[in-house]
Amino acid sequence: MALIVQKYGGTSVADPDRIRAVAENVKITKRHGNDVVVVVSAMGKTTDNLIALADSVSSTQPGREMDMLLTTGERVTAALMTMALADIGVDAVSFTGSQVGIITDTAHRKAKIVEVKGDRVREALAAGRVAVVAGFQGVSTDKEITTMGRGASDLTASALAKALDADACEIYTDVTGVFTADPRIVPQARKLARIHFDEMLEMAGAGSKVLALRSVEFARNHNVPLHVRSSFTWEAGTWVTNEEPNVEDPIISGVVTDVSEAKVTVLGVPDRPGISAALFEPLAAANVNVDMIVQNTSTDGTTDISFTMPIADLGEAEEIVRRVAAEIGAQGVTHDRDIAKLSVVGAGMKSSPGIAAKMFRTLADEGVNIEMISTSTIRISVVIATADLERAARTLHTAFGLDSGQAYSAPLPERT
Amino acid sequence: MALIVQKYGGTSVADPDRIRAVAENVKITKRHGNDVVVVVSAMGKTTDNLIALADSVSSTQPGREMDMLLTTGERVTAALMTMALADIGVDAVSFTGSQVGIITDTAHRKAKIVEVKGDRVREALAAGRVAVVAGFQGVSTDKEITTMGRGASDLTASALAKALDADACEIYTDVTGVFTADPRIVPQARKLARIHFDEMLEMAGAGSKVLALRSVEFARNHNVPLHVRSSFTWEAGTWVTNEEPNVEDPIISGVVTDVSEAKVTVLGVPDRPGISAALFEPLAAANVNVDMIVQNTSTDGTTDISFTMPIADLGEAEEIVRRVAAEIGAQGVTHDRDIAKLSVVGAGMKSSPGIAAKMFRTLADEGVNIEMISTSTIRISVVIATADLERAARTLHTAFGLDSGQAYSAPLPERT
Repeated sequence: MALIVQKYGGTSVADPDRIRAVAENVKITKRHGNDVVVVVSAMGKTTDNLIALADSVSSTQPGREMDMLLTTGERVTAALMTMALADIGVDAVSFTGSQVGIITDTAHRKAKIVEVKGDRVREALAAGRVAVVAGFQGVSTDKEITTMGRGASDLTASALAKALDADACEIYTDVTGVFTADPRIVPQARKLARIHFDEMLEMAGAGSKVLALRSVEFARNHNVPLHVRSSFTWEAGTWVTNEEPNVEDPIISGVVTDVSEAKVTVLGVPDRPGISAALFEPLAAANVNVDMIVQNTSTDGTTDISFTMPIADLGEAEEIVRRVAAEIGAQGVTHDRDIAKLSVVGAGMKSSPGIAAKMFRTLADEGVNIEMISTSTIRISVVIATADLERAARTLHTAFGLDSGQAYSAPLPERT
Repeated sequence: MALIVQKYGGTSVADPDRIRAVAENVKITKRHGNDVVVVVSAMGKTTDNLIALADSVSSTQPGREMDMLLTTGERVTAALMTMALADIGVDAVSFTGSQVGIITDTAHRKAKIVEVKGDRVREALAAGRVAVVAGFQGVSTDKEITTMGRGASDLTASALAKALDADACEIYTDVTGVFTADPRIVPQARKLARIHFDEMLEMAGAGSKVLALRSVEFARNHNVPLHVRSSFTWEAGTWVTNEEPNVEDPIISGVVTDVSEAKVTVLGVPDRPGISAALFEPLAAANVNVDMIVQNTSTDGTTDISFTMPIADLGEAEEIVRRVAAEIGAQGVTHDRDIAKLSVVGAGMKSSPGIAAKMFRTLADEGVNIEMISTSTIRISVVIATADLERAARTLHTAFGLDSGQAYSAPLPERT
């Protein structure tokens, strides 16, 4: 008998029909002799709607109160899911994050897990019941209700899988797995049968929305294999594990595209110590999530500094940057919303030099201009014009051998 | 410095504008030097919507899961109210029923309060903060989330007022107080400045919707004076207290009308012991809330038994009654949806004989036929045809001296 943690995202439980469909899948899993823990997100756009409600009531939104508000979404789903299970003869019981003992620190809206007790889940499983857990939430060491940030229901699932020593952690979403590229941009993209934690981490960092970065980080650090799959097709998805790739595997696992960022450039910055700190400290204080930063070597005693950040934060960031630019005597500030980030990710990169060169050559041959470059051991990211994105992504996908018919491994056997 | 508990019902917090208006009133109360505890209901039709959602997901609705579901409504309001207060500079903090230590028994959906701890509310007040409490809910002795039945936010307020030894408990609703009759039916109805707990209890039992019966019962048993008033006009409302009426007060405090019930009659019931039990036990088991019961003396060895119950339960009740009627050899079952219950309530009745006779004579003079009669020490209720209700209620209102211009006491001074 295996213990399986299943997490269902917002689109998977968006309405009563979807909730009943998920309940059927839980019943099938249970009937196969497994113990099942179900982690649920809020239904559809519930969290967004609650945030909009808060916005219309008050511009002052203490984190503690936002957490009191937002945690209700997952509780509603958990209660409804438990009823749907009862309706088809599956004995189930719902739990809040607090009730299952997901203990966090006291940082409201972005709490970190300190400990997962899980006693009530263990009792429920021992009694032959399905445990349905409201995701995204915990209780702080100060006994306050906390949330762990957007997408943190994945984190709830991996943390419970770890604490309960589960045999599998299935992340059900609205796509059938992790793809070599976003199929809306690169039609020849393929679903990966498996991917290494490190690659998944880099993909999430590069803008892939399939799994939240923090959840992958937790799963990697605690070695909780994740199975990302669709609650609409129920077909086998992508396993995210710590399995090293084979030598026969392609060097690159995927091409990741991201159009959610804007670029800000500070022109003619005096080249002296402390300038970068002067610029990025106030941005950090304002919670602006700066992504790529590029600074060239100074030639005439001044340099240009460019960075990317979420478009949503552009207004706030530009205000700060203009103020700092004036203080430090820079020549000016420009911004560009029409940029895209394009990354190639692959664990094979570590042992295979020349990937960056190949990427730059491929883009050059397509006439795509590169504005910024940033690299890690297993990822190369470039910033290009949004208008070039589709063409560039498709070309790289082909150049790195990711197109259909070039599958690099047979799918793993489906769950029994 | 006084401690005031204020409870705001669903219509009082139905939308962001209403929530901000309520926050302003809390701020005014606080600025007058009072400590304030705010108890909130779910916004508008939230609870009904959640129940509809549960209905569309599952016909199996375990009480524990319904409580997990329904308690989210009040939590949303509590969080939003606290943010609205913060926005106008009032330091506030929200609490769930569990967090304030409203300990109940384990009967989900109709839990009874066992104990109110209130420690966190006391701490918040001591720190100069407003405590905003989610109504309607508690935590059971088994550490499960419970609810205390529809309208139980009033109960939360009175129980907290008692536990905290509050100076006043204000129940804000969408009417300006308790009236001598429903103004939609009796236009000359007047707002009462005060009313005795016992009269309010009888009014609630007779169908008045201003206060939930259990809340009045609790307030009476623990002597918590309630001030029923409107969150739309903020004018002084009606005090519900244990103050005995003056001899100059009218004998009757109000005329109460109720069209929510239907009448069922079992004809030709054999007159032998155990028949009533055979009939009403299965109804009780099916949770049918039987109200008035009338059985006449047998003449020919058989008798007729009539009773009233909520129209909503009529289908279920009739099925049970037809089965039992066949078993006990009764001649038949009839039902009537077009009936209304009309009651006069007044503490003065105890010391003033002849009220019933006067009521019956007044109705007879108006040509109103009485179908059933039931009495308590301070209430007389009759069942009549719905078509006669308006005329009958207005006539009684006049006959018992309740029309405008006959006010029986000056309003109490408004809160300072």
